[in-house]
Amino acid sequence: MEKNILLTIEYDGTNFHGWQKQPEQRTVQGELERVLHIVCGQEVKLEGTSRTDAGVHAYGQRASFKGNSKIPTDRLIVAANYLLSGGKNAIGQTGDVRIIDAGEKPPEFHARFDAKAKKYIYKISNESESDIFKRNYFYQITRPLDIRAMDEAAAHLKGTKDFISFQASGGEEKKTTVRTIHDLTITKRQDPQHGITQSLQIEITGDGFLYNMVRIITGTLVEVGLGKKSPHSIPSVIGSKDRQNAGHTAPPQGLYLADVYY
Amino acid sequence: MEKNILLTIEYDGTNFHGWQKQPEQRTVQGELERVLHIVCGQEVKLEGTSRTDAGVHAYGQRASFKGNSKIPTDRLIVAANYLLSGGKNAIGQTGDVRIIDAGEKPPEFHARFDAKAKKYIYKISNESESDIFKRNYFYQITRPLDIRAMDEAAAHLKGTKDFISFQASGGEEKKTTVRTIHDLTITKRQDPQHGITQSLQIEITGDGFLYNMVRIITGTLVEVGLGKKSPHSIPSVIGSKDRQNAGHTAPPQGLYLADVYY
Repeated sequence: MEKNILLTIEYDGTNFHGWQKQPEQRTVQGELERVLHIVCGQEVKLEGTSRTDAGVHAYGQRASFKGNSKIPTDRLIVAANYLLSGGKNAIGQTGDVRIIDAGEKPPEFHARFDAKAKKYIYKISNESESDIFKRNYFYQITRPLDIRAMDEAAAHLKGTKDFISFQASGGEEKKTTVRTIHDLTITKRQDPQHGITQSLQIEITGDGFLYNMVRIITGTLVEVGLGKKSPHSIPSVIGSKDRQNAGHTAPPQGLYLADVYY
Repeated sequence: MEKNILLTIEYDGTNFHGWQKQPEQRTVQGELERVLHIVCGQEVKLEGTSRTDAGVHAYGQRASFKGNSKIPTDRLIVAANYLLSGGKNAIGQTGDVRIIDAGEKPPEFHARFDAKAKKYIYKISNESESDIFKRNYFYQITRPLDIRAMDEAAAHLKGTKDFISFQASGGEEKKTTVRTIHDLTITKRQDPQHGITQSLQIEITGDGFLYNMVRIITGTLVEVGLGKKSPHSIPSVIGSKDRQNAGHTAPPQGLYLADVYY
């Protein structure tokens, strides 16, 4: 009997050309399908929840697939992760993706269409000098950020709104650009010795996100933090329905798909 | 007039085949010489202090070179780092090495032969599950480590001793295998919420190190921490002058060349 399996997947996006399978490119979907084909003994077509861009990471991407494989889900995880890690002869670009959970779902379940909400985390480092060890995992801002102003701006972004000003071109056509941001918080990590903000973590939960929406929201909040934009300008940025009025698109490496809610 | 320039260099060793230049391989020395050739307008031969292995990182590698270039050292840093970062069109494996200091030295100064001492840091993560984001930067041990036993073992390693038991084969021939470890400390970082040790940092300073000595010392301390070796066995491991009696060689990605003292 055909089973419908939902996977929870973690990856370091640095060496992937994003989630979505592409010819001649190393992608997360491509790597997983290759390995699941071996483990399940049949071709697998994964339906991912979020098509993360190149360089974007995930703590909890979800993807479902249907198959007749008789392998129990716990053994599927072990076998797939063994192959993903490069097995006994691990070298090079290996160990940067793994399956952390697998569970059986009803036949009609779909990882993407049934997602009720998603949570993203965006990590910003705010030290006076950039750090090469953070280059693939943080957006490094070396001028001081005014967190209070960023908090004030963030408050204007919560709720149900037309977020078309925060949508990049190039994504797939959407029926509506209205989305609900359930929660948007900015937490600081301080160096206890200096009382200086060392890093910020933006956590954003919503029912769905337009193309590059989290990165454009982050870029806008950063511009508020740097004093280039006033927090009071946010309602008019939203109201203008014009991408030009929002901030820049923050780089991919600070972004983490943290969780998906069904 | 020929100048003798000492560089301080930081790198993420993940995507390098080590320090030492090799044909057809991306190495730290190779990248730096390529870029300095452009900046100085002449071929440059770098003398590095430590030939770090593939995957090993550096906060403070040193390397010296002689040249007739008239470019001031502060402009040399800016120009070289611009090229190392990939310049305007940065893509791919870039930004993982940079020059953090450059200074003029007397003609007879040599980055390697004049080094009085070196400091290495070895990072161990000790959580119950491994973390893909740490895979290139920590040695991940998922079973609990007994830090007190490791501290006790470390005390036996300090001082002037024949460290031949902690030398891997494959390095260059040394006149003597006697070295002095000035300092060897293990510091813990604890999760304030759980009181569990999350990571350890081994800091080791000495007048010189044999091939893979820091990694073999670390592997030995880890075996003590796991209860496979007694801390009291260390003097006999040293006394045996037999590599077989020391622990395993800890993996390269946890190792950082932290500083060089002249």
